[in-house]
Amino acid sequence: MIGLGLIGGSVLRALAAAGHRVLGYDADPATRATARTASAKVQEDHRWQVTASIGDTVRAADLVVIAVPLPAVGAVLDEINGHTGLVTDVTSVKGPIRNNVTARFVGGHPMAGRERSGFAASDGTLFDGCAWALCLEQETALDDWLTVAALVTGLGARVVPTTADEHDRAVAAVSHVPHLVASALAGVAGRDKLALTLGAGSFRDGTRVAATRAALVAAMCGGNAAAVRDALDALLTELTEARRLLDDDDPISALPGWLDEGGATRRAWPTRAGEPQAMAAEPDALRELGRAGGWVTAVAADRGSVTVVRPAAGQAGSGGRPRAE
Amino acid sequence: MIGLGLIGGSVLRALAAAGHRVLGYDADPATRATARTASAKVQEDHRWQVTASIGDTVRAADLVVIAVPLPAVGAVLDEINGHTGLVTDVTSVKGPIRNNVTARFVGGHPMAGRERSGFAASDGTLFDGCAWALCLEQETALDDWLTVAALVTGLGARVVPTTADEHDRAVAAVSHVPHLVASALAGVAGRDKLALTLGAGSFRDGTRVAATRAALVAAMCGGNAAAVRDALDALLTELTEARRLLDDDDPISALPGWLDEGGATRRAWPTRAGEPQAMAAEPDALRELGRAGGWVTAVAADRGSVTVVRPAAGQAGSGGRPRAE
Repeated sequence: MIGLGLIGGSVLRALAAAGHRVLGYDADPATRATARTASAKVQEDHRWQVTASIGDTVRAADLVVIAVPLPAVGAVLDEINGHTGLVTDVTSVKGPIRNNVTARFVGGHPMAGRERSGFAASDGTLFDGCAWALCLEQETALDDWLTVAALVTGLGARVVPTTADEHDRAVAAVSHVPHLVASALAGVAGRDKLALTLGAGSFRDGTRVAATRAALVAAMCGGNAAAVRDALDALLTELTEARRLLDDDDPISALPGWLDEGGATRRAWPTRAGEPQAMAAEPDALRELGRAGGWVTAVAADRGSVTVVRPAAGQAGSGGRPRAE
Repeated sequence: MIGLGLIGGSVLRALAAAGHRVLGYDADPATRATARTASAKVQEDHRWQVTASIGDTVRAADLVVIAVPLPAVGAVLDEINGHTGLVTDVTSVKGPIRNNVTARFVGGHPMAGRERSGFAASDGTLFDGCAWALCLEQETALDDWLTVAALVTGLGARVVPTTADEHDRAVAAVSHVPHLVASALAGVAGRDKLALTLGAGSFRDGTRVAATRAALVAAMCGGNAAAVRDALDALLTELTEARRLLDDDDPISALPGWLDEGGATRRAWPTRAGEPQAMAAEPDALRELGRAGGWVTAVAADRGSVTVVRPAAGQAGSGGRPRAE
């Protein structure tokens, strides 16, 4: 494990608790000391080791997990250049990483986060039930993908097979643009002190992630600029249409039709799971599963099949039926 | 109390629990029956009465509270035309109401809400600590305003003195536009089933209010169209600027400056309270208090002064200092 922040520390804890032998490294000596001290506090067979260098962590590893911030990934990849084992990562943008990797690589992204950051906030149960995107590119060895998928489903996560491009488009819509919008909403409201005092639930939730460190949001959005541009353009088109409807002679009658698409989507979210089914472990079928909103919950021991869950009928996305009102 | 939905029912319960004699009416017979049954279940001196007509509720009332949906307010005002007592309301848009009222009127808006609606969701403690806007117009009798303010502070609410125009501008920014944005975000994401599966905290919170009934959102936004247009234009200007920065050669370096305004505002929110102070009950000073982000916590028995709270130094709005990171 390279990088022992919130996500790296949580993966470290979760893998160690699942019985894996785990070594961890962080560039910050204080974080290493914290992680070392924390290991002594968990039960003996759930402990991890903290090493003094990346080399010591990587040398004999079956799997290297890169959990450093996006701008630092390049330097880590340079440093482990020559490592012949399998490498994965947990970074929120997948295209730029994919383009810089030379090792055997399976790009990953657990959709988990917290208000607090750093090892002190890490939690081995953070991934229980969380969606964890795993990139299955044309060049990815299926066996490597299944190795990481088996490990990650073992932490309780729902593995979503995808590609770097499709992942980056999807998270632009559900994560990166929402961060930009939260910041814009908070910024506009902040010009009126009366508004801030009257702000309640819709303001609290609609702007929550505006408090995220600007450097982190800039790295996510700027590192995924092409997809974020497209998603932001789609949003601007929708909001411009709402703006037009507000000019209608009777906006109270004009707006509900516009509100229906988002309302139906949100009322059908989170996607409700269908029954688990077995499926042959085949790359095209796995990618198609991800596109359809499904995920993998287990990998068979012989690697020939996986257990998958698809959205319950009529429940995913804009195809979903609005709940009766 | 006219209208026994979530807010009306909660005001009814809270006033009755505070020792006031309360009569309630709702146009829906089933709601009246529910409210009547619920009264028998609370302790004897906290009960209310449910009447069979608006007239029976209003006839001897010291204060009439209108708590019906915005499109129904006009009909209720017509029906109580001739009532000479004091009238207030709890509607989310204040300008259209103000323009239709003939009685002695103090427009109000408690900034409280819930996912669920209806009397069954009502709760007498809903207003504890909540901001409750009360309109103090040039034509409002200060004594009437103080009567309602005393009642509402008695329910634990923070009374924010404002005018219909200033209120409507403020809630456009912190409530109405956030509802439109949530709907647009959900609608765009819903076109990609993969995105919905990968949606996590920022999507959940950023779109929560998209599940609100379309008719309710349309009534709020369409009933406040002029102010919502202005607030939406300000938001579109900000998002268009973010869109421009994503075209920068180095968006990761270009975005933080843009993110800072919203980040500083959100990190300083909710507004932290300064020490309570006494202030003369004077209309201009009260309106200025509301504009500065302050509120009233109590009305003196002699009506000559009020206890007020202002934002703690350096904490309100865009004047607030960003938290150290």
